[in-house]
Amino acid sequence: MFTYDMSKAGANRLYHYLYQCIKKDIVSGKILAEEQLPSKRNLAQNLGISVVTVENAYTQLLAEGYIYSLPKKGFFVADINATAEIQSGHKHKPKHARHLPEIPEESEHTNPKYIADFASNGSDIDAFPFSTWAKITREVLCEKQKDLLQVSPGVGTLELRRSIAKMLREFRNIHVSPEQIVIGAGTDYLYGLLVQLLGFDKCYAVEDPGYGKISKLYSQYGISVSYIPIEGKDFVDALKSSNADVVHISPAHHFPTGKVMPIGDRYRLLSWAAESPKRYIVEDDYDSEFRMTGKPIPALQNIDVTEKVIYLNTFSKTMTSAIRLSYMVLPPHLAEKFHNKLSFYSCTVSNLDQYVLAKFIDLGYYETHINRMRNLYRAKRDVLLSAIDKSNLSKVAHIYEEDAGLHFIMEVHTKYPDAEFCNRARQKGVNIKALSEYYFKATPSEHKFVINYSSVEKSDMKKAVQILADLIRFSPEQ
Amino acid sequence: MFTYDMSKAGANRLYHYLYQCIKKDIVSGKILAEEQLPSKRNLAQNLGISVVTVENAYTQLLAEGYIYSLPKKGFFVADINATAEIQSGHKHKPKHARHLPEIPEESEHTNPKYIADFASNGSDIDAFPFSTWAKITREVLCEKQKDLLQVSPGVGTLELRRSIAKMLREFRNIHVSPEQIVIGAGTDYLYGLLVQLLGFDKCYAVEDPGYGKISKLYSQYGISVSYIPIEGKDFVDALKSSNADVVHISPAHHFPTGKVMPIGDRYRLLSWAAESPKRYIVEDDYDSEFRMTGKPIPALQNIDVTEKVIYLNTFSKTMTSAIRLSYMVLPPHLAEKFHNKLSFYSCTVSNLDQYVLAKFIDLGYYETHINRMRNLYRAKRDVLLSAIDKSNLSKVAHIYEEDAGLHFIMEVHTKYPDAEFCNRARQKGVNIKALSEYYFKATPSEHKFVINYSSVEKSDMKKAVQILADLIRFSPEQ
Repeated sequence: MFTYDMSKAGANRLYHYLYQCIKKDIVSGKILAEEQLPSKRNLAQNLGISVVTVENAYTQLLAEGYIYSLPKKGFFVADINATAEIQSGHKHKPKHARHLPEIPEESEHTNPKYIADFASNGSDIDAFPFSTWAKITREVLCEKQKDLLQVSPGVGTLELRRSIAKMLREFRNIHVSPEQIVIGAGTDYLYGLLVQLLGFDKCYAVEDPGYGKISKLYSQYGISVSYIPIEGKDFVDALKSSNADVVHISPAHHFPTGKVMPIGDRYRLLSWAAESPKRYIVEDDYDSEFRMTGKPIPALQNIDVTEKVIYLNTFSKTMTSAIRLSYMVLPPHLAEKFHNKLSFYSCTVSNLDQYVLAKFIDLGYYETHINRMRNLYRAKRDVLLSAIDKSNLSKVAHIYEEDAGLHFIMEVHTKYPDAEFCNRARQKGVNIKALSEYYFKATPSEHKFVINYSSVEKSDMKKAVQILADLIRFSPEQ
Repeated sequence: MFTYDMSKAGANRLYHYLYQCIKKDIVSGKILAEEQLPSKRNLAQNLGISVVTVENAYTQLLAEGYIYSLPKKGFFVADINATAEIQSGHKHKPKHARHLPEIPEESEHTNPKYIADFASNGSDIDAFPFSTWAKITREVLCEKQKDLLQVSPGVGTLELRRSIAKMLREFRNIHVSPEQIVIGAGTDYLYGLLVQLLGFDKCYAVEDPGYGKISKLYSQYGISVSYIPIEGKDFVDALKSSNADVVHISPAHHFPTGKVMPIGDRYRLLSWAAESPKRYIVEDDYDSEFRMTGKPIPALQNIDVTEKVIYLNTFSKTMTSAIRLSYMVLPPHLAEKFHNKLSFYSCTVSNLDQYVLAKFIDLGYYETHINRMRNLYRAKRDVLLSAIDKSNLSKVAHIYEEDAGLHFIMEVHTKYPDAEFCNRARQKGVNIKALSEYYFKATPSEHKFVINYSSVEKSDMKKAVQILADLIRFSPEQ
């Protein structure tokens, strides 16, 4: 035992060879658990090697758990087979045996292939400026090496925040300083930061119907969420009668109805916020870039002089999922609070993405891209509307809010309940979602459907419309 | 009033021209606040244009806040100068006047230039594979266009999770399925997800001394944090006597002391966790790749058979801040819980970064990169240690834990208190941090300093060592 022929070490470093020999003997059971190992000095003498070599081998064995040491006693062989029992502290089978989690099986592409997917908020294949992005990435990787290795401030690089401030000034007439901007990897992440900034003890209000994820996210933090109906009752009155401190809205383009908040309501909302220092308005301006006619609606942030509006927007809508980058604009006093309370967080966006996007904006590519996308989506919308117009669908369907953003609402006269209509459409290869699926507490209008056309190919639209038209033709009592 | 010459519209669309005319009159005061606008039908008749054109112009004016409408009464001019008063609801100056936040002034590079910055965890200029990354980015942007536009699952693309699982198997002998892996934009973000997964009602324990950000982050969620001393008392005993449910540790390389958790403690820790279903161990393996001698220490995750270990690691240490990408490996039952409870979150990492990194790993570039970096950092360490050895510093300094990771501890015999020593060093151009700065409640050892050499140029090391040696020579009673 412990008599190894060190001349066989060959190309191996001596310590590594010794480590391998002892490990082999432990695993094979030649050396038994709890057996004491020779002292480093003794073994070194016996094998004719240095104490340091033995020490290195023992250190590795220790680190890997084959041996353990007791102070002033020496080294002992660990019971490598008893791991489970040692761990659980008792002998019964651990509660959670090692098994694969019951998660739906994944394939490279989880979405079934539809002829047309009007429920997806995916993007058109032309929606990402692949070659420009590649070119700028190459330039940034070449020119900005030192900057890329700097640890970015938690709120994002100054360079990108400057570009965004400039862009907001030019496109949205929003005048803010880069110090008010916080960059983050997606709006979900920024919502989480907002909760930490404004406090877990606040009550949040969301629009009903609305984007279910927002209330789900707030609830995740144990926060109480009020649902404010945007139809029927007056929105601001309903908000007042809730106990909400913070209201989360998309005034430029409500999701999913597409409604624009009237100017009167905007002022009344700001009034409501001004009544208490706890109150804030989160203005989610998620697809204002894609307004199809007229000039973009001015942001609430624009008419706010009491520092009550937190403006949020994302590049993931205009630049696709390829780039995950969102930002928020905090009113100055909140920017200061953020700096004091949350600036310890590392920025969640890669430096590379930040520098490439900044350059993309500064060189005017972003403006060009938005204009190109707006035209592309407008053309899609026109093809779809014209296909509907020319089909039998037009006799039983009414289109709402087709001018804003990348979706519109289609009301259909059908006797099918919403769920059945959607199911039948899906079976025929057309994925659509009923507006009623977006309601929380308010009473949904039946037979309205959200038609998101951004990821549907123009060439598939006529067929998709025909499928929907046929469905209605054959629906009961139609 | 309201008599515009529509033939002057020129290239302008009619509605836009009308909108501009009315807006101009409102802004110039020609049309006064609260004045009623003609009905759409009347104005259309007067100007000889269609009602739709007037409607479009009014809609834009409404949206921009120049006019407002009252149900069944019509359109009125808004008081565009009284905005502030309307908003605040009363006349006194708003509490927070619009001002820039009091945030330290930023420049492109906020770090003062030191001769040597041993307190920075920045990276060497050679630390990022710029040209390979550019090449792969170009390839991915060319070959993966459809994939890049897909919405990635909340846990990250299957492609990258597969690459990471394979890499963990080959480098760390950790056998996990891609379904157990969650990709996120940095470990800070993943810690936040963990809190949501394990519950806000748990008590978390962290190492003392340790990385201050971790306890700060947990406290941010209103969570109670226990500080467990890693010196003196037995760690596991101390943990047991706290009321912690979750312990956050770096067993492979404690920060900042560099200590490796002994195997005995590891098993006892797993035992502790097995005693209650609420208990978990967060294993933060943040720089295990950079172990300088011997084989990497096996992960706790490796010897855990009771699904108690959550393994975390980041690419931001090996790939620099240029890429913000971390991951965690959940035990199967927690992966299932994550899927049910948190998969609604969008993944925080850009698809582009995910696909490029996956390819970078799969083609073997990551392994090459790590080996190159390990050699580069080992060479740096050797230059620094040799400079210390050759200087007077060696007579009064002792080096600890120089084999693991990118920093070591230097104990110095000096009469200066830690803060003064650091201040004097900084004044001379050498930035270092005392180990005592990383203590929370435990009693710090004085005169130990954390020497992080990863971002220091080899050519500056001799000078930096001389500065420290001189400081000690001239320190009182030395």
